[in-house]
Amino acid sequence: MYHAVIMAGGSGTRLWPLSRKKSPKQALKLIGERTMLNHAVDRIMALFGPERIVVVTRDEHYQVLSGQAPELPPDNFILEPMGRGTGPAIGLAAIHLRKKDPDATMAVLTADHFIADTARFRQALASASKVAANGHLVTLGIKPSSASTGFGYIKQGKSLSTVEDFPVFGVERFIEKPDRETATAMVKSGDYAWNSGMFIWRVDRILEEFKRQMPDFYAQLSQVEAALGTPDYQATIRRVWPQAAKETIDYGIMEGAKDVAVIRVDIGWSDVGSWGSLFELLPTDKNGNIIVGPHAGIDTRGSLLFGKKRLIATIGLKDMIVVDTEDAVLVCPKDREQEVRDIVERLGKDGLDAWS
Amino acid sequence: MYHAVIMAGGSGTRLWPLSRKKSPKQALKLIGERTMLNHAVDRIMALFGPERIVVVTRDEHYQVLSGQAPELPPDNFILEPMGRGTGPAIGLAAIHLRKKDPDATMAVLTADHFIADTARFRQALASASKVAANGHLVTLGIKPSSASTGFGYIKQGKSLSTVEDFPVFGVERFIEKPDRETATAMVKSGDYAWNSGMFIWRVDRILEEFKRQMPDFYAQLSQVEAALGTPDYQATIRRVWPQAAKETIDYGIMEGAKDVAVIRVDIGWSDVGSWGSLFELLPTDKNGNIIVGPHAGIDTRGSLLFGKKRLIATIGLKDMIVVDTEDAVLVCPKDREQEVRDIVERLGKDGLDAWS
Repeated sequence: MYHAVIMAGGSGTRLWPLSRKKSPKQALKLIGERTMLNHAVDRIMALFGPERIVVVTRDEHYQVLSGQAPELPPDNFILEPMGRGTGPAIGLAAIHLRKKDPDATMAVLTADHFIADTARFRQALASASKVAANGHLVTLGIKPSSASTGFGYIKQGKSLSTVEDFPVFGVERFIEKPDRETATAMVKSGDYAWNSGMFIWRVDRILEEFKRQMPDFYAQLSQVEAALGTPDYQATIRRVWPQAAKETIDYGIMEGAKDVAVIRVDIGWSDVGSWGSLFELLPTDKNGNIIVGPHAGIDTRGSLLFGKKRLIATIGLKDMIVVDTEDAVLVCPKDREQEVRDIVERLGKDGLDAWS
Repeated sequence: MYHAVIMAGGSGTRLWPLSRKKSPKQALKLIGERTMLNHAVDRIMALFGPERIVVVTRDEHYQVLSGQAPELPPDNFILEPMGRGTGPAIGLAAIHLRKKDPDATMAVLTADHFIADTARFRQALASASKVAANGHLVTLGIKPSSASTGFGYIKQGKSLSTVEDFPVFGVERFIEKPDRETATAMVKSGDYAWNSGMFIWRVDRILEEFKRQMPDFYAQLSQVEAALGTPDYQATIRRVWPQAAKETIDYGIMEGAKDVAVIRVDIGWSDVGSWGSLFELLPTDKNGNIIVGPHAGIDTRGSLLFGKKRLIATIGLKDMIVVDTEDAVLVCPKDREQEVRDIVERLGKDGLDAWS
């Protein structure tokens, strides 16, 4: 059977002060009245149904996230004691699925992206499972809409096939976040796609790659797998996980994997990684502003004013970000939004932990 | 006897969102942990004592202000049903004092200014009462520290005397807020002082001027005076006050008054009229910032970050004002602080009255 694994383990410090230790990015209502996790579940419900949608997250976020997705069986939340990167998180999901369904195919999906064309996205996932059936590790490559330096890229290799109307290519290589010049050249060539972090593969195939490429971690994972369904499970994962090395799936597996394929898709995909990313996602008014919550403004342009109940009043702002939450307010120019994570780092040092 | 009348009737829209309809400027803690009314009472307590300090304000502010000054007898709050400008407010205080003490001298003082040298201020008030004793209407003229265009000026006439070590002059004329060029010339000449809005006079003298220069209002005031101490007082002032024309003491009385004198003082006087004025009053840190309340900042300079309990986080701000209150936040460049009052005006129109 085909299962979806939604990766929901991140914290999203660049979305502070809305994202917090106790309220990670996936739990936030950034786009409309549904949280990022809600969006992630909603868009695949028609394809997988609640029984075959699994969420991987950290213990500390279970309460918040499971409360937001009551439609999913509680057992479908797979919990890590702490984050160990996407590699171990995916490995953990894979052994859970193997136990439940040895013939499982899994789609690794994200909760921190927005997808405008959800119907097309579901078509792509359905087609990808057919490519994965023969043993390929499939990645969804996003047709680039700009020379972004914020994503990794995938260089497409030779054409393998066309499934439904999706072109499938081999993968020549994975490229880390490039500089502007490289990005421009790659997008111009037409041979590159954005690495979306979404993957489709058979569970037996990905575990085979773990065994081959990350043998130490695979040994650790096997201890956890042996304890699955026994009273020792919690104790085992709590013992093993702190010892596991941090690793991303890209570094640890994909770059050295066999039979990697990329399906090129155009699904209105956007990263929701920072406040500035909302400018790509939310409609602006006639002054170029995105305004959420009550606002009173004079001569305010190109700005994101993101509040809830409290009033945000602005005079003479241009290209600024103001985010107002119950106990904190952030004011920062749009072109310095990347430094929000530095503020969060500083909170710990300056005795302002209460706000981190 | 010598009495002090603290004028506390204004609302202070340029200090929004801290100042509100229900929480006027006088009630705010802008400088340290005492409110503006507290500062105004504290600095004259040694000279007048609680019995001879009177506060004039509007009915709607009585609860808040009397709660802040429990040291004053409740009867020492003189209440207007609505604001009618400084002229009628002073007239009302004058008839109350005449009833209580026909030989009273009154010092009309403000609650929306800060005075650094309070000892010198009390000396000036004591000396001024001696000048007022012979029938002069005395104003305190502030030695200008800059060519401000935000105040009215007083042109000093011939020297009348020196009382203690305060020089006393006749007043040649009152000048409204000037343009920059005029202000510069006036300050350079040395013959001008800032009009502080503080006056010292005998109650019989000022009421004589009301009778001569504002006869219609004086007739109205006489109706209120006749009702003083009777059960009809409330009904009378509520009937009369809405009919009284708005007038300032400067326009209505001072510009046409006889025997006006100015005492030139240097007492560390500052207007506290707007957020920008706090830059003259509060110490800045090494980055030129004034920070009240918890703050986390990166590359923030020359800015006022005025909060209380909530965290204000800033990145890359220069010469900005951020004021954070329980239910609203204001963000505005320092050089546009005068437009804060326009925001307040807009609140009514845009259905945001709850925040006005």
